[in-house]
Amino acid sequence: MFSTLSPGALGLSLDHPTAVDLAARHGFGGVDPDLGHFRTLGLEGTREHAAAVREKGLQWGMAGLPVPLDGTPAEFRQALVDLPESLDLLSAAGVTRMGTWVRPMHDVLDHRQNWRLHLGRLSLVAGLLEDAGIRLGLEYIGPKTFWSTERFPFIHSLREARELIAESGASNVGLILDSYHWYTAGEDADDLAGLTDADIVSVDVNDARDDRERDEQQDLDRRLPFATGVIDLEGFMGAVGAAGYTGPVKVEPFMKSLAERPVDEVLEEISGLLDRSLEVAGPAKA
Amino acid sequence: MFSTLSPGALGLSLDHPTAVDLAARHGFGGVDPDLGHFRTLGLEGTREHAAAVREKGLQWGMAGLPVPLDGTPAEFRQALVDLPESLDLLSAAGVTRMGTWVRPMHDVLDHRQNWRLHLGRLSLVAGLLEDAGIRLGLEYIGPKTFWSTERFPFIHSLREARELIAESGASNVGLILDSYHWYTAGEDADDLAGLTDADIVSVDVNDARDDRERDEQQDLDRRLPFATGVIDLEGFMGAVGAAGYTGPVKVEPFMKSLAERPVDEVLEEISGLLDRSLEVAGPAKA
Amino acid sequence: MFSTLSPGALGLSLDHPTAVDLAARHGFGGVDPDLGHFRTLGLEGTREHAAAVREKGLQWGMAGLPVPLDGTPAEFRQALVDLPESLDLLSAAGVTRMGTWVRPMHDVLDHRQNWRLHLGRLSLVAGLLEDAGIRLGLEYIGPKTFWSTERFPFIHSLREARELIAESGASNVGLILDSYHWYTAGEDADDLAGLTDADIVSVDVNDARDDRERDEQQDLDRRLPFATGVIDLEGFMGAVGAAGYTGPVKVEPFMKSLAERPVDEVLEEISGLLDRSLEVAGPAKA
Amino acid sequence: MFSTLSPGALGLSLDHPTAVDLAARHGFGGVDPDLGHFRTLGLEGTREHAAAVREKGLQWGMAGLPVPLDGTPAEFRQALVDLPESLDLLSAAGVTRMGTWVRPMHDVLDHRQNWRLHLGRLSLVAGLLEDAGIRLGLEYIGPKTFWSTERFPFIHSLREARELIAESGASNVGLILDSYHWYTAGEDADDLAGLTDADIVSVDVNDARDDRERDEQQDLDRRLPFATGVIDLEGFMGAVGAAGYTGPVKVEPFMKSLAERPVDEVLEEISGLLDRSLEVAGPAKA
Repeated sequence: MFSTLSPGALGLSLDHPTAVDLAARHGFGGVDPDLGHFRTLGLEGTREHAAAVREKGLQWGMAGLPVPLDGTPAEFRQALVDLPESLDLLSAAGVTRMGTWVRPMHDVLDHRQNWRLHLGRLSLVAGLLEDAGIRLGLEYIGPKTFWSTERFPFIHSLREARELIAESGASNVGLILDSYHWYTAGEDADDLAGLTDADIVSVDVNDARDDRERDEQQDLDRRLPFATGVIDLEGFMGAVGAAGYTGPVKVEPFMKSLAERPVDEVLEEISGLLDRSLEVAGPAKA
Repeated sequence: MFSTLSPGALGLSLDHPTAVDLAARHGFGGVDPDLGHFRTLGLEGTREHAAAVREKGLQWGMAGLPVPLDGTPAEFRQALVDLPESLDLLSAAGVTRMGTWVRPMHDVLDHRQNWRLHLGRLSLVAGLLEDAGIRLGLEYIGPKTFWSTERFPFIHSLREARELIAESGASNVGLILDSYHWYTAGEDADDLAGLTDADIVSVDVNDARDDRERDEQQDLDRRLPFATGVIDLEGFMGAVGAAGYTGPVKVEPFMKSLAERPVDEVLEEISGLLDRSLEVAGPAKA
Repeated sequence: MFSTLSPGALGLSLDHPTAVDLAARHGFGGVDPDLGHFRTLGLEGTREHAAAVREKGLQWGMAGLPVPLDGTPAEFRQALVDLPESLDLLSAAGVTRMGTWVRPMHDVLDHRQNWRLHLGRLSLVAGLLEDAGIRLGLEYIGPKTFWSTERFPFIHSLREARELIAESGASNVGLILDSYHWYTAGEDADDLAGLTDADIVSVDVNDARDDRERDEQQDLDRRLPFATGVIDLEGFMGAVGAAGYTGPVKVEPFMKSLAERPVDEVLEEISGLLDRSLEVAGPAKA
Repeated sequence: MFSTLSPGALGLSLDHPTAVDLAARHGFGGVDPDLGHFRTLGLEGTREHAAAVREKGLQWGMAGLPVPLDGTPAEFRQALVDLPESLDLLSAAGVTRMGTWVRPMHDVLDHRQNWRLHLGRLSLVAGLLEDAGIRLGLEYIGPKTFWSTERFPFIHSLREARELIAESGASNVGLILDSYHWYTAGEDADDLAGLTDADIVSVDVNDARDDRERDEQQDLDRRLPFATGVIDLEGFMGAVGAAGYTGPVKVEPFMKSLAERPVDEVLEEISGLLDRSLEVAGPAKA
């Protein structure tokens, strides 16, 4: 398990080389890959860049999946046409994790129709990623203020996400576990029992506002880990640790104020909060 | 298609013999059976009673299904133990329709878990009813103010209900179509296209309050048909007529004020509103 | 409903222009499109060719789907990359039907895993075809000597095929009905009841050997329609007629002897057998 | 893990008291409960009997589930009516395991229809057994000479059985693992990887005839464990041991010749073969 600097998740506009430097300077264990930057470098340049990043002692976090699982057939097909170029670059860099989230509602497709849509596409994408040696993380979204906004609520719990992954038949698909979704979904440490490293592709630690009830929390208005104590991060990270998780841990608070503060100050704080999260998770399992 | 007096649906406390008399007096085409009363009559008495009801020119509406589809295993089993006595009485009376509704949410079971629970039990109950020559009607519940109140929304649309029925594999299960659920589910006449008499077990006509948006309507606060014009009863009953539906049509307004008015006045009004609904449906298909 | 010359189904090596001429000469109502030939003509040439075919009074039969539903993810993706060129050519020609068959067994994937594989891919392909105004026909394979040859039998009945199509959620997918599969699957006219023109994309009429039991019939060893009387073609085509089917009807006997006889003699016979099949189906529904 | 004397599985007609005595005399660790005998004893008598069996150092094996999962609705309902009496007796005796097998084919219901039938009934029965503190074992049947004999093959592999159990949502349902089905299903030790004690309710060790190919083996014509070496019992029992399995292990060879030999001789041999099987499984996991 290692802390990761994900500028996008922090709402910071950092070009990739700067992000790499800042991640190293502030003691992060990893940094998110940047497909756009890799494209400018080309395959060979990306290989060299990745070597340099490794030399700084940094691991790769997770890349975003450039495939809309719920797009139109034409959009989804086009994304498949384009996918190999991205996979080639990520493979060249040694990136092994990509991720996406599942939209937790739909105005037209009911739960079963939407399940079939996601299942078929997830299986196909997983197969293509597997050929490239890349695992896929799937994030479920917990806040009721989000999943209840359209006619047909969809996956918004860990159990549903795990069943979707199991039915995909893919061995390279796992969860993106975010404490915020885990909390808003009404889940606790017991729900995480039995998970292994193979089940988890990425972890997010966030806290929630303390002036709102659980079902009133907004997806895009969170707090930094340990800020309010609303979310049981000890229980969450303890379970993640017990699972023997070995991947990236990041913060995704959706707080605009972060972009208004000096970046070094922000990253020093974030790095420290992530270190504290890792400590809470306990020593790595043998 | 025939109008039916269902005292329970109107919130009226009428003993069964009185209900039969009132149904005949006010020009209803049918009346709901009353299992409790049948029990007091016994098998032979129920047969005689049913003959008398038929002589008054009344058909049977629908009996409630005394089986909790979402009960505990022990509760569901006990209901199966008790079921044959009810089926024997209803068969003796010549009743051919029973019905129940599907709770549109659950706090623990997600959509897929709840689907499996309902599917297995529905199939079993349908088989037992089929042996007794009885069809089973299933009612989906539309109001968002209801299905969004627990963690996992469940069936709350016509399409989901039809898929559940299709998967049950039972040929004697159909829909209870209620204009109020159809409206609150955001459905229109096109959604009813293609239905046949075999797909429909019972029909309810209700209107909605005109001072609330669709997603704010409450399940237990409706209006009498044609009262506000919020619900497109022409479209609804037109589609029911086009399906060639031959069964009972009733009103279920959940208006306490009905019980406070003179019963004859109320039933005269209801009977007239149902006649108007039948007219809107158009002439019976050949 | 119209008779169609499908050289491939007859085991005849005819170049496309020859097939068109022969179809017209021998009184077929249609001819199968030939993607390979269309490619040599280009878009504009294909449009002109199609106009000429129409002027001969011929309709288009069905094109083969160039997508392996059960290929590896990489193979399936590549087929999607290539698909638009084919769809453009077929659209230019005015072709509206493509078809494929479902392999009725798998040595590794069990029934449920294989279902998920096919369902996801079928939905996606159907969406892409729908954008091009093309319907997709799906053929189930009936012979036990085929589906029982690997570890996990898969779809080998009409009911399974219809459920797969229904779950795909696609409105442009239907069945390829082949009397040979219908017979070997142990089905009868009742199984075809309720089908409509929208449910059927193509029809094959074949008979079976009369010296084998049903479960011993081989997929690739059939007889010409009406040859043995083993298959109830009256029941089959009567049901197809009752469905109001308006599409192509062809013969696919897998008899090598056809290629050894004079082609004009063969096509005269086939055309006559198809005309007899259409007669058996009865007059077109209004 | 303990060896168990199951007279029925050996084809021996032993009354229950005799079976108990023989089990103790020949060093078995357990004996199968006998519901018929318990009925003659009544609740209190069963309690006393069970105490006596425990005093002999014997544990209970598994009782047969007196519920036909694939019976008609009326048959299944009647079995549910009768079930509590059996559960009460088994609970009084301290029995914690019941089991049944899944018929691996059907002439009318296809795989999906049959799945739904079994899933719904399994969930319900599991719930009733859970209330009684009893786990349910499910046995899949492997021989192709059996599952290929009707129109629609059904569950005949470990993976399918595990998915059915997972979908049942029951925490008290597990597998009956029989080396004969595991072998005939074409499975190996890898397929058993990851199983835990909670996944296994009972274990059978058998060998197969060495003059038949795998797909020609007959379900009811097996060999005693280690007799031919056709089945890799080291791999099988090694995996069972690695799972930390703590339950009964028995032999079920369907060899009529056993009943023709002196019973003490037979049981001495069986007990020894089971001891050897336990040894192969390795020391109990901490």
